[in-house]
Amino acid sequence: MSGADLLARIRLIRSQSIGPVTFRQLLARFGSAEAALQAVPDLAARGGGRMPALCSEEQAERERARVEALGGRYLSLGQGLYPSLLAESDNAPPLLTAIGDLSLLERPSVAMVGARNASAAACRFARGLAHDLGREGVVVVSGLARGIDAAAHEGGLATGTIGVIAGGLDIFYPPENERLQREMAAKGLVLAEMPPGTEPRARHFPYRNRIIAGLCPATLVVEAAPRSGSLITARLAAEMGREVLAVPGSPLDPRAQGCNGLIRDGATLVQNAAEVMEALRPGLGGVRSGRDLFSYSPEVPASVEPDGAERARVEELLGPSPAPVDEIVRLSGLEPGAVQLVLLELDLAGRLDRHAGGKVSLR
Amino acid sequence: MSGADLLARIRLIRSQSIGPVTFRQLLARFGSAEAALQAVPDLAARGGGRMPALCSEEQAERERARVEALGGRYLSLGQGLYPSLLAESDNAPPLLTAIGDLSLLERPSVAMVGARNASAAACRFARGLAHDLGREGVVVVSGLARGIDAAAHEGGLATGTIGVIAGGLDIFYPPENERLQREMAAKGLVLAEMPPGTEPRARHFPYRNRIIAGLCPATLVVEAAPRSGSLITARLAAEMGREVLAVPGSPLDPRAQGCNGLIRDGATLVQNAAEVMEALRPGLGGVRSGRDLFSYSPEVPASVEPDGAERARVEELLGPSPAPVDEIVRLSGLEPGAVQLVLLELDLAGRLDRHAGGKVSLR
Repeated sequence: MSGADLLARIRLIRSQSIGPVTFRQLLARFGSAEAALQAVPDLAARGGGRMPALCSEEQAERERARVEALGGRYLSLGQGLYPSLLAESDNAPPLLTAIGDLSLLERPSVAMVGARNASAAACRFARGLAHDLGREGVVVVSGLARGIDAAAHEGGLATGTIGVIAGGLDIFYPPENERLQREMAAKGLVLAEMPPGTEPRARHFPYRNRIIAGLCPATLVVEAAPRSGSLITARLAAEMGREVLAVPGSPLDPRAQGCNGLIRDGATLVQNAAEVMEALRPGLGGVRSGRDLFSYSPEVPASVEPDGAERARVEELLGPSPAPVDEIVRLSGLEPGAVQLVLLELDLAGRLDRHAGGKVSLR
Repeated sequence: MSGADLLARIRLIRSQSIGPVTFRQLLARFGSAEAALQAVPDLAARGGGRMPALCSEEQAERERARVEALGGRYLSLGQGLYPSLLAESDNAPPLLTAIGDLSLLERPSVAMVGARNASAAACRFARGLAHDLGREGVVVVSGLARGIDAAAHEGGLATGTIGVIAGGLDIFYPPENERLQREMAAKGLVLAEMPPGTEPRARHFPYRNRIIAGLCPATLVVEAAPRSGSLITARLAAEMGREVLAVPGSPLDPRAQGCNGLIRDGATLVQNAAEVMEALRPGLGGVRSGRDLFSYSPEVPASVEPDGAERARVEELLGPSPAPVDEIVRLSGLEPGAVQLVLLELDLAGRLDRHAGGKVSLR
């Protein structure tokens, strides 16, 4: 990747109203981040909204210098070492910042997540399991949170572990994990979607969770309360067609309810590293390097250009309730590419919200 | 059932070399227990062995008087209140002795089994679950053993519970469950395959387990060590096509290994009565009274009569290693009924062993 292309990609993804899905569509339609940046003002104007605040070249340059100063580097969707399993998801981060041993991204991996307030026994179990998996050559991926996450990283530190954090690479959250995060940057790998300096906020954690699930052929939940973040990660993994594994517990232990529920819903019950390996084996072939497989494909044919009446028709079909894009396409009678372009314009104009499951609504 | 028929049935099943499978085949071939008793000497002679010691009329009469004195009665395979789900298995006991409320046999039921040395928490859990299931109208069936069995019966006592014991109706084993067994005879139901006065021996417990599994559309295991009797009951239930349910536990608890293993093998994870009911629902229709459905059908057409050469051919095909009856039939080129008759003769002559899965070997 040329320095200019990286800079343009940083500018594009750090611009207002441009998330992973929009970024991907812009690149598919315009061929490069540079061309997309030039097209955004016109698209936003046609979408009927204000021009989105674009990230300036100076801002992007400052971010890149900061990442370099931290000893980090960028991974860019569809290029170089960008993990191909992660690239398979529709909303994969276009850019990741990374500090540490990038070769870990090419090894078999398993995501291990669980409660922040897990029992001491469960933390000990997670640490031991990560250690045993490490001896089998498996990289343990987690979120550098308190509890199960930290225990999983500690167990995997000697053999290889990847931490995905919700804030920037230079932010330590929770503060008590600073030493662990620094150790992982030195001996493992730390990944962040947000630029340096970003303090993690509530909305960043589900984004972080999709990266953890997306990186691995399997997500293992150790101890989780019902409706917890760990279960969201498990759900995201299942939606991506990945294996979901869960460690059972007594029905008398409220902290076991989440995992027991996952098993009832079809997750594989695992009790030790051997059982995890057994569940992983079919998926191990799926861990491919971004160098081997370019799974990033254009979704929007560039040729289709809707006229004003067609734009109005798409807008009419949208409302405040999220509706599937497929349905909008069907009801509009237009080419999918044309509908996607109108949605892109509305998105850049700040008038569209994108929801889970490919749904959209007018803001 | 006439008194004379019952007496003949008692004589037949209490005779040497006549187990449930042989009993069933004799009844199918000769139409009545009385006719079978008369045929046994000839059959045994043709099988080339000693005449089996038949139970005398006096012995049978004494047993019947003892059962009556205990306030019990007989349930005879394929007749009256004999539970039809139990009758479906090939080696269902031809006769059961019973004390208590026979109407419990017509209610939806679930078998609940587990470790004799279960944790206090697991016993409390089993008791509570049985209580909750009772409130849903479900009869809890167990084996009146220590630990989980006793807890399950205690929890189900107010609403209805069935205990299947390995010895005779007048034997209390283990001794500390005497009070519970007496309470169950008064308020629930106690079943025994063996005649009164029989002290339970090791070989009786697997027989008892097949009755527990056979009575119910589902068997629930609460806490069980690997290779324990509870897991045998679960396996028997699965082989009969019944649901297997298991309560999970932490991998750190060795007593959870059996149940976690069952879940890995496909048993349904259950945490409470609602989840048990959910698993039972499809099977509830399967709990039919023996009065409604006569599932006891002849297996051996009475017309086929092998000659000496054919008898010799079947014997040649048998050896000390258990072989499937189907295979003997195929290799012999004879009618299945003819092969069954030769096997019956060898059996009555004390020269045949019958094994699980319909296999037989020469003694």
